Amino acid sequence: MYVGMGAAIEKDGKFLILKRADSKDFAPGAWEIITGRLEEEESPREGILREILEETGIKAEIVMPIETGFFYRGGKKFPMVFISYWCRHLSGDVTLCWDHSMFRWVSIDQILKEKTMEHFHSMFEKILKLKEYLPSEIIL
Amino acid sequence: MYVGMGAAIEKDGKFLILKRADSKDFAPGAWEIITGRLEEEESPREGILREILEETGIKAEIVMPIETGFFYRGGKKFPMVFISYWCRHLSGDVTLCWDHSMFRWVSIDQILKEKTMEHFHSMFEKILKLKEYLPSEIIL
Repeated sequence: MYVGMGAAIEKDGKFLILKRADSKDFAPGAWEIITGRLEEEESPREGILREILEETGIKAEIVMPIETGFFYRGGKKFPMVFISYWCRHLSGDVTLCWDHSMFRWVSIDQILKEKTMEHFHSMFEKILKLKEYLPSEIIL
Repeated sequence: MYVGMGAAIEKDGKFLILKRADSKDFAPGAWEIITGRLEEEESPREGILREILEETGIKAEIVMPIETGFFYRGGKKFPMVFISYWCRHLSGDVTLCWDHSMFRWVSIDQILKEKTMEHFHSMFEKILKLKEYLPSEIIL
């Protein structure tokens, strides 16, 4: 089984979305959140913080896990469990690597209108629900 | 990579803990929550609801994932990612199988005093924190 992680990174009430490079085989130009695959001897929490640093140069902390699931990533040979985390920006400016061509900090409302981000809508709906009740500085 | 799941099942503000059978090789007689391993072609959510049904006969729903981690379950050959869920009892009485010899519904305070449940303390501390703010019927 492979394990993948995703991160919805919050900063001042907005969330980081990134545009996939046009050179990507899969979904070129689509908007997405930070995602990545777990390496050996790594916890999913360590893994997603590493991916965030590698893909954006920013330091973040994990607020809490939000969603888990299972899918086949490119055929039956590649079963993958994923875990998505709500994260919070700690320090640093976004510096893109070759994976992405653009980034924006946007509200959840804007994300829910973005058709190419459909796969992430249920995650952001859950964060929206939690934010109704939880204090803004909470961390689990 | 192996994937395991755990469930803290709530009913009327109390949580289900179970005593491992004395016949178990590992930690006989210790109190624990429901845990289990992911099967093929199964999402972690489906997996933990299946384990709950198999080990207790009760039907439950998932409130939200609470904790994720990584450990070696019996040596380097068995790397395991785990996901723990806060769950809610829906219907049915507990019927134990051979894995467990006793069960109790207890408060989080009682669990935090139970030394043999040390591995689960951080999970219950997180649920306690969330319950301060979230309405009792919430589900993500």
